[in-house]
Amino acid sequence: MTTNPISMDEYLETRKTLVDQALELYLPAETCEPPVIFRSARYSVFAGGKRLRPILCIAAAEAVGGPIDAVMPTACALELIHTYSLIHDDLPAMDNDDYRRGKPTSHKVFGEAVAILAGDALLTDAFRIIAGRTPAGAVTAEKLLQVIQEVALAAGWFGMVGGQVADIESEGRAPEEKTLNFIHTRKTGALITVSLRAGAILGGADDDALDALTEYGRHVGLAFQIADDILNVEGDAQALGKGTGSDQSRGKLTYPALVGVETSRRVAAQLVGKALADLSVLGERADPLRGIARFIVDRRT
Amino acid sequence: MTTNPISMDEYLETRKTLVDQALELYLPAETCEPPVIFRSARYSVFAGGKRLRPILCIAAAEAVGGPIDAVMPTACALELIHTYSLIHDDLPAMDNDDYRRGKPTSHKVFGEAVAILAGDALLTDAFRIIAGRTPAGAVTAEKLLQVIQEVALAAGWFGMVGGQVADIESEGRAPEEKTLNFIHTRKTGALITVSLRAGAILGGADDDALDALTEYGRHVGLAFQIADDILNVEGDAQALGKGTGSDQSRGKLTYPALVGVETSRRVAAQLVGKALADLSVLGERADPLRGIARFIVDRRT
Repeated sequence: MTTNPISMDEYLETRKTLVDQALELYLPAETCEPPVIFRSARYSVFAGGKRLRPILCIAAAEAVGGPIDAVMPTACALELIHTYSLIHDDLPAMDNDDYRRGKPTSHKVFGEAVAILAGDALLTDAFRIIAGRTPAGAVTAEKLLQVIQEVALAAGWFGMVGGQVADIESEGRAPEEKTLNFIHTRKTGALITVSLRAGAILGGADDDALDALTEYGRHVGLAFQIADDILNVEGDAQALGKGTGSDQSRGKLTYPALVGVETSRRVAAQLVGKALADLSVLGERADPLRGIARFIVDRRT
Repeated sequence: MTTNPISMDEYLETRKTLVDQALELYLPAETCEPPVIFRSARYSVFAGGKRLRPILCIAAAEAVGGPIDAVMPTACALELIHTYSLIHDDLPAMDNDDYRRGKPTSHKVFGEAVAILAGDALLTDAFRIIAGRTPAGAVTAEKLLQVIQEVALAAGWFGMVGGQVADIESEGRAPEEKTLNFIHTRKTGALITVSLRAGAILGGADDDALDALTEYGRHVGLAFQIADDILNVEGDAQALGKGTGSDQSRGKLTYPALVGVETSRRVAAQLVGKALADLSVLGERADPLRGIARFIVDRRT
């Protein structure tokens, strides 16, 4: 473990490289049968994601002094779950998006049937990787079971899936803050929060540190979604790799639609302030998490 | 544990009732938010399935003297995974089926988006239920992790999902036995085999019993699929609750299409014989599994 301070860019870059290497290791080769399912899964997993969820998971483990190798399978599993959710959200029956990160979406390349099945397989494999790839002895089996349970809870109907359902149902309806909070805390917030909790649990956090990282997750999760909504309104379509203004044309319920861009920006900044305050019980090992909180609202893509 | 012999019908009926009661307990109420996801999931889970996979899981545990309560969450999780696979297989982008077990399919009732998400949520919740609902102390955490890993392997791209992909790709192509075996062992065989393995592992099977139950699972899994193909050719559409002859009109690769109905029937009977032989190392506690093997090829729905 290094004690030299490293820059935020360097931290994100090194951790992203570790995650990409591990994903390459965990995902089956494209030569396995039937190849199209592995090719389509790899197409979406290696489509240029920022690896935010795995990095949050790793950073939470590091913030409490845990080793990276105990947490890497879970960190990658969270990215696979995120990727599956994007593939399914982009389907014609859902958001019907043709592009994601500047590339044609899975169903445009491989057809709807394979896109649905690639999502299903990625979600399934996430649990295989947590249960089967975590090094024996690195953490107790009981902790791994707790993580599996929490990840499933955050990804399922009480979390991400429930948020997506509410999001679809809200389209074209009168905007209400209560509904918007319901969607945001579930659709993106739940998986981000559990990324931090999983890292903390596997990293050996005590109760205070776990609570602090959970609250940090809730605050950065919401800040991230608001920042995402703002980027959809006024971001650079080329840098984002997808069209902007799509939320508005679709009648999506978003923060900017509800309270305007300026207020949204202020709320996001307040949430980052709360996230930084949450980390006050943790020492300088939590500096990367402090940097990530600021990065989330400053990003341009 | 009873030592009185009970009839096969009675065994299947009592175990099905236990599974239905547990599913009722594990599945969230339809009043949870957003209600449509819970309503759609319950619609498909309680659509009249035979509960074959959970019953095989329970029967495997009972065959090695294990208690039912240790295995019930996993047994129900297998049914949720089976249900999710039916919902997604029925989608317009896949088999485009309007009816299943005599009822309109999920996407016909709730729309495609909700059907996709209901499948996603059921798959996700299966892992939450195994990890979170198995009574503490009933089995070791290590065994539960092994079961999670094996279930995910059987349900994912090396199992059920891979089989479905190969099945879709085979439509309209020249029938080959190699391809057919690839599809059958994965699309239905893998989940049936892991139902037995999971029950055996959680029931405390030794290596010999685990091997025997694994082989039994491979043989009844294939017999089940062949019987299913035969029913699709000459079954009673009303009893099945869906149209017959659909495989043929779709150019699906099936056993009857490849070798004819009579040879298919003979192969299925041979497989049941092998399955019974597999159980020779187990005593009369395995009688329900013997009955199920015969039931699988004799059934009419």
